[in-house]
Amino acid sequence: MQKRINRLIEGQADKKERKKTLQELRLKLLRSQLALSEAAEIPVVIMVTGQVGSGRGETVNLLNKWLENRGMETHAFGPPNDEERARPPMWRYWRSLPPAGRIGIYVNGWYGEAVIDRVQGLIGPAVLETRVEEVREFEKTLAAEGALILKFWYRISRERQAERLHQLESDPVNRWRVNELSWLRHEQFDAIDETAHQVVEATDSAWAPWHVLEGGHPERQTLQTAAIILDRMQDRLRGRREEVESARAPVKCRPARDPQTLEALDLTQTLDKTTYHEELTRWQDRLSQLVRDPVFRRDYAVVAVFEGHDAAGKGGSIHRVTAALDARHYRVISVAAPTDEERAQPWIWRFWRQLPSHGRMTIFDRSWYGRVLVERVEGFAERTDWRRAYGEINHFEQNLLRSNIILAKFWLAIDADEQLARFQARAETPWKAHKLTEEDWRNRERWDDYQAAINDMLRYTDTTAAPWHVIEANDKRFARVKVIKRLCAAIEGAMESGG
Amino acid sequence: MQKRINRLIEGQADKKERKKTLQELRLKLLRSQLALSEAAEIPVVIMVTGQVGSGRGETVNLLNKWLENRGMETHAFGPPNDEERARPPMWRYWRSLPPAGRIGIYVNGWYGEAVIDRVQGLIGPAVLETRVEEVREFEKTLAAEGALILKFWYRISRERQAERLHQLESDPVNRWRVNELSWLRHEQFDAIDETAHQVVEATDSAWAPWHVLEGGHPERQTLQTAAIILDRMQDRLRGRREEVESARAPVKCRPARDPQTLEALDLTQTLDKTTYHEELTRWQDRLSQLVRDPVFRRDYAVVAVFEGHDAAGKGGSIHRVTAALDARHYRVISVAAPTDEERAQPWIWRFWRQLPSHGRMTIFDRSWYGRVLVERVEGFAERTDWRRAYGEINHFEQNLLRSNIILAKFWLAIDADEQLARFQARAETPWKAHKLTEEDWRNRERWDDYQAAINDMLRYTDTTAAPWHVIEANDKRFARVKVIKRLCAAIEGAMESGG
Repeated sequence: MQKRINRLIEGQADKKERKKTLQELRLKLLRSQLALSEAAEIPVVIMVTGQVGSGRGETVNLLNKWLENRGMETHAFGPPNDEERARPPMWRYWRSLPPAGRIGIYVNGWYGEAVIDRVQGLIGPAVLETRVEEVREFEKTLAAEGALILKFWYRISRERQAERLHQLESDPVNRWRVNELSWLRHEQFDAIDETAHQVVEATDSAWAPWHVLEGGHPERQTLQTAAIILDRMQDRLRGRREEVESARAPVKCRPARDPQTLEALDLTQTLDKTTYHEELTRWQDRLSQLVRDPVFRRDYAVVAVFEGHDAAGKGGSIHRVTAALDARHYRVISVAAPTDEERAQPWIWRFWRQLPSHGRMTIFDRSWYGRVLVERVEGFAERTDWRRAYGEINHFEQNLLRSNIILAKFWLAIDADEQLARFQARAETPWKAHKLTEEDWRNRERWDDYQAAINDMLRYTDTTAAPWHVIEANDKRFARVKVIKRLCAAIEGAMESGG
Repeated sequence: MQKRINRLIEGQADKKERKKTLQELRLKLLRSQLALSEAAEIPVVIMVTGQVGSGRGETVNLLNKWLENRGMETHAFGPPNDEERARPPMWRYWRSLPPAGRIGIYVNGWYGEAVIDRVQGLIGPAVLETRVEEVREFEKTLAAEGALILKFWYRISRERQAERLHQLESDPVNRWRVNELSWLRHEQFDAIDETAHQVVEATDSAWAPWHVLEGGHPERQTLQTAAIILDRMQDRLRGRREEVESARAPVKCRPARDPQTLEALDLTQTLDKTTYHEELTRWQDRLSQLVRDPVFRRDYAVVAVFEGHDAAGKGGSIHRVTAALDARHYRVISVAAPTDEERAQPWIWRFWRQLPSHGRMTIFDRSWYGRVLVERVEGFAERTDWRRAYGEINHFEQNLLRSNIILAKFWLAIDADEQLARFQARAETPWKAHKLTEEDWRNRERWDDYQAAINDMLRYTDTTAAPWHVIEANDKRFARVKVIKRLCAAIEGAMESGG
């Protein structure tokens, strides 16, 4: 096919051959799309990017004409709106991802914003580098989770760009595509070209490679694009998959203190009833003040994660936190099995969709750490997948931190004896009996496997910026006060260093 | 149970009896919740409302303590944010609904905003009436779709309110709940009481009844509330369901012209190629101008609906519309089978979630009209359900219209001969063959049933404000130009009358 497309592009084909080749290309593309749709396992991400006038629009139009529209969606992004600005920059791209079996076509996608922000001087080189790193990690996760990623960059010269803009302006159907902004971008040509080149180089990878084509010649570049898409779709249909950088020993993003371990905990700490009530009231009062601080309301958000052994008291601790909050300002997300919309996306997608906007708190009763705990221990996730998750989690959390989302991660630790006592108490308390399931007993048999998984989790995800608060929870009163105290400290710390 | 609760409330029970009754109430409530959760058929909506200091917070806290938190979510709403303001007022409430099997607890919910807006003078009596009507229709749809709706209004006197506010202020744990706004609401007591009373009366129905309780006495009202919730949950578990106002002959909201029928169409109209290209270019140009108008960008949105016989040319018409649009400003939603998240909600929920914000266009390739077309003809929906849908659709569309969402509904009509010719052409065109399925042939056998359903749809949902544009589509060129012309006229008309 590739050879015959080349004949077309080089003008070696006569009209008849041309027609035949085009029809065949179209048909093969469509059949590949339908086969991928049928299998419903692989989402396809097609990134079409280049400078103004490089012919992105025409290419997207042809893809829209040739492919089955009911299995795809085209995305282009303007400046972020309020909801988007209150979240990490990648949030809106996560939200837009095609589910498995569908195609998402992106005009500039997550590349446009970063490049233009840099050229306009809205961000410096360091922030650009961070954005690029976020994009790399994003694409790596998509690819590792099975996505087929195709990225096209249509290069164009400054002269050809001017020519194209004049052409478009004189075409009644397309003249609206050219406006003042287009000519501003023309003036910025060199800066955009240089920045884009940097970004393209830095985000080129085996699993999300750039295809750099000569732009400004819509018909030719569209054919080349279509041929490449066909090629890579067919590869995937034949089971050939780009290798994603293998998960070596998971890399910790920033070294924290010496690793915490469950074994080092002093679980004998307790709090008497009177002190408990005094302290609880004091810290609830403090928390309620902190989250009503105008600076917090405007610029910050909190994501609080509650993990712990079964019966460690997560629910009770969450209650003591929410008692200090206005119902308008928080949500509690109880993490259960993913829905089918969530299963058709990368595993971490369902947590991205729940991020709070400024002034709000989202409390996770169990969280993305399930990936390296229950999914690891029970074998729901492959070894390579859960090993990869440590890095994905750290990057996810960095995205939050960079957007002023304060992270407070609590591990509620009890020992095996205490757990047994609580299981028995649950069994005997009528309104708690339903909380005790077969699964709890099964998990308990795997206590040691869980301890190993927890210690690994602490080793790899206890970062300076997003530390684990390991809470000695054999005594419920002690645990509840410590949780809320640490939560206050986390909010205060973030706001002090941020201001 | 009710009798024993009364003994408690009236102070006739000793400590031991009291404890026993409370434990039993708690346990029965929990078991009902778990049974409803297990069945996963009924969503439960609990509305807790009343003036400041009436004890809503305490009641919600107890429900949160007694019920299984993993099966419920508590919602309270502040002033709408940007995303919400750009949609109909009911949009954010639709988004928050509990799926089947879960409980949503609402503090003031969709009642708070309307009452306070009215008291503040932000809306007049006519708008309040409209809001009340929207709420009635909303609750009616929820109930008809199976939701259990419990609404509590805690009445309190002005004097008791003052007492309660002082009490709360002197309690270190709760003092944050009282602020300047609370005292402002206290000053507005009479106005709020009167407006709320009106709204409560107007929204009381068999399927969403108000339970008016004496407020300001948290413990007592909470027990009464819990007992009522238990009662009504148990009723539903026993299969007893509140009757929802029966769908009589569907009511048309506003009479349009004489009913349009398919039989009256002149399908012989055509357009020659030259005129077609001239006209298409002209109207695409016009459309691209309209949607870039700053007034449109700021205050309006478009929802365009494409329905029609199989092979009527919906996809081709949509292409000619989107060719004139910037990819940043529109989305095409191809309506397929609902996902499981959608199936756990009222049928129309999945369309609510797709509404555009200002300056944008959402194009539906098939739509909510499937309810009264394919679902009716194929028997996927019960007769009472699809008959009820005409009214639900009209109300849904009114919600959109009132928020400056311009509705353009296109029915692309072809006759049976033309359809057959197109089916045959599809079968013979390699890249169209996949569009022709067994289902198309099956639908074709039911041509007459569909004609009847379509004529009913035109009769009941062709309203002055949201008219159907029935497009003669035997000639594709004629149809495409007419669609885009009508779309332009709809946008112009709305903006002229709106300005």
